[in-house]
Amino acid sequence: MKNKLYFKLKNKKVQEEAFIAIKKEQKTIGYYALPEQDISSILTYSETIPDTIENIAVIGIGGSSLGAKAIYEFIKPTKKLKRKLYFFESTDPLNITTLLSKLNLKKTHFLVISKSGTTIETFSIYKYIYSLQNNPKVYTFITDPGSPLEKYAQEIGATVLYLPKNVGGRFSVLSTVGLVPLALSGINIQALLDGANKLKKSFFGAGYMKDTLLKKAVFYARHHMQYNINCIFAYSETLKYFCEWYVQLWGESLGKRQHHSAFHVGLTPIGLIGPKDQHSFLQLIMEGTRNKSVTFIKIEDFQDEIVIPDISLPHLESLDSLNTLPFSKLINMQCESVIEALLEEDIPLDSITISQVNESNMGALMYYYELLTSLVGELIDINTYDQPGVETGKHILKKKLTSLSR
Amino acid sequence: MKNKLYFKLKNKKVQEEAFIAIKKEQKTIGYYALPEQDISSILTYSETIPDTIENIAVIGIGGSSLGAKAIYEFIKPTKKLKRKLYFFESTDPLNITTLLSKLNLKKTHFLVISKSGTTIETFSIYKYIYSLQNNPKVYTFITDPGSPLEKYAQEIGATVLYLPKNVGGRFSVLSTVGLVPLALSGINIQALLDGANKLKKSFFGAGYMKDTLLKKAVFYARHHMQYNINCIFAYSETLKYFCEWYVQLWGESLGKRQHHSAFHVGLTPIGLIGPKDQHSFLQLIMEGTRNKSVTFIKIEDFQDEIVIPDISLPHLESLDSLNTLPFSKLINMQCESVIEALLEEDIPLDSITISQVNESNMGALMYYYELLTSLVGELIDINTYDQPGVETGKHILKKKLTSLSR
Repeated sequence: MKNKLYFKLKNKKVQEEAFIAIKKEQKTIGYYALPEQDISSILTYSETIPDTIENIAVIGIGGSSLGAKAIYEFIKPTKKLKRKLYFFESTDPLNITTLLSKLNLKKTHFLVISKSGTTIETFSIYKYIYSLQNNPKVYTFITDPGSPLEKYAQEIGATVLYLPKNVGGRFSVLSTVGLVPLALSGINIQALLDGANKLKKSFFGAGYMKDTLLKKAVFYARHHMQYNINCIFAYSETLKYFCEWYVQLWGESLGKRQHHSAFHVGLTPIGLIGPKDQHSFLQLIMEGTRNKSVTFIKIEDFQDEIVIPDISLPHLESLDSLNTLPFSKLINMQCESVIEALLEEDIPLDSITISQVNESNMGALMYYYELLTSLVGELIDINTYDQPGVETGKHILKKKLTSLSR
Repeated sequence: MKNKLYFKLKNKKVQEEAFIAIKKEQKTIGYYALPEQDISSILTYSETIPDTIENIAVIGIGGSSLGAKAIYEFIKPTKKLKRKLYFFESTDPLNITTLLSKLNLKKTHFLVISKSGTTIETFSIYKYIYSLQNNPKVYTFITDPGSPLEKYAQEIGATVLYLPKNVGGRFSVLSTVGLVPLALSGINIQALLDGANKLKKSFFGAGYMKDTLLKKAVFYARHHMQYNINCIFAYSETLKYFCEWYVQLWGESLGKRQHHSAFHVGLTPIGLIGPKDQHSFLQLIMEGTRNKSVTFIKIEDFQDEIVIPDISLPHLESLDSLNTLPFSKLINMQCESVIEALLEEDIPLDSITISQVNESNMGALMYYYELLTSLVGELIDINTYDQPGVETGKHILKKKLTSLSR
């Protein structure tokens, strides 16, 4: 994974301070250690799911689904996988009905994932599905040790797996939360962790990624009032759900009141897919308010060498310059052209290049974004790991629910 | 369709000026007249496509695909449709290969949609598909009269349909561009237009929507520096692609240099889906920088009365308050709870309620957003209908393509 920054920064002192703070955080924040974990218990568990199971359905929302979905949708077009993954992540009745119509319940294993063990959406859906299929053997529960969900699962005799300590939902993709569904689908989770670990070592071992991530984080933090929208512009449809994962990670981590002030700060994440969004959001970046930074993500080798055929269409000869070009080359030329266009407009940008679509590269990319999020959070003086703003709505809903007279 | 505004505004004079300007625009801007069009030629054309065709594949990007996709994905969960729609809208080779693997070419009709007739993405993909299937009878082309594509289509003996005059890509959903694929899939396009027309009459006939839209547009325009991110928070998965359509419409229309100044202005659109994004973006709205407005969209009646069963789970009795609740009621209570939470934080918001998932409501909703876009564009002194910012990248790509020595 390469990351080319098109903006310059010195500020060695503030960079070094942030690095020291993040090194300290490793003692209290659980996600840092995930790349080195031993996955043998997850692999052993995976073997207990019979081959007759063709579908894995995750019942979970937010941090309990976005990570696995991002990785699954990234890898799926390039690899014949063992099982299909489905995600129940909405209380929309049409969505639940449509998803269920695709599943043969006899060939489906359900993973019910809830850190707290009491997520409203997850349990509404679980109760409904349980009324259709009440065999405890087709459910596995993933939750915090000691949660009411753990006790429930034990009581009905279903398998329970645990989240590691001090790992928040949106930083949990490389824990059981993401690894269990991915392992069951046939994705190489060791390669995923190895990719993350390589990036981790490059950062903490003062390699290439230390300098790059620190420079980028300081730039975002210093300019967070001016450039307060941070776009990812990913040139591959395979990265669509990675963008959704990024939006949660960035938005929920970095939109907060400051520790030492009454001031609300926040960096707004936007996920774009090229070349499609050249025909949508690009105009706003080029000519709209100057409040956006952009990170381009390119895939060097798509391992799918379909080529634009050497056909000249009458009256459309102006398009002959496309002939014999591999699509993978075209899409990357489109990305390069937009980078050049934005540089002419002085839009702050950088580009990330990954060699190909595989688990290792996705592990590295996700760990890169987790580190960047932690660094920026540290630099803008907020608690990166809580989400107090979502509680008010939950309390109001609870009141509404209990006051329903039925 | 109801629209409740939670912010107050007087400014009768500026509202009336905008209304007069928009009334004038009807003479030059084509989309305003689309709801009243005669669709008999589209229906006659639809009858020429044989029943053996099971798939309609749209080859088009941006305004040529987003509108039809939004409506198709909205209606699909509620109605048994005649044919499936597929959208080729990326030069990503993995995406092209994956989509083609789902299509039986013998049962597929292709709609090649390009206003200019020379869109790079569309013709790269078309050339590739044409090399696999070169029967001109399975292609229909939609383009501007007089474009090189029209001549090409006539030369190979394929059907050509035309875009109406002065209708830009992102405002073209209710023209042939959107109506042809939708009619072929079995969607009731007359009901779609009727819904749009009802909204149009309410606005131009000085009904309920005139007052509402003008108030909302003036609020957005007056505060476009402070609240420069405008979120849609739609409580149904069926509205996911409507959000993508909105992002293009809003972003590409309203990100511009002002007519009478050198100043860049722009309003940033964000599409969110509830309740999922309560677990993602909501924290940023509640506690982040105060630069966002939110429009909630609710569906009153999902016509799918699945209910949370009356099951009490041991150790999880706290969730019993959910029992016997229809999911449609739960999701709307979730929406209401978040509205109340945001109102406590003084976030500017409004809510749109549509009665159910059908063509008429989607026609109204889209026309509502088109009118709102035109009004805000008028009020912030920009050209709502051009997109000069996307040209630079295109020119750079063209140069790169012609300089390739192959």
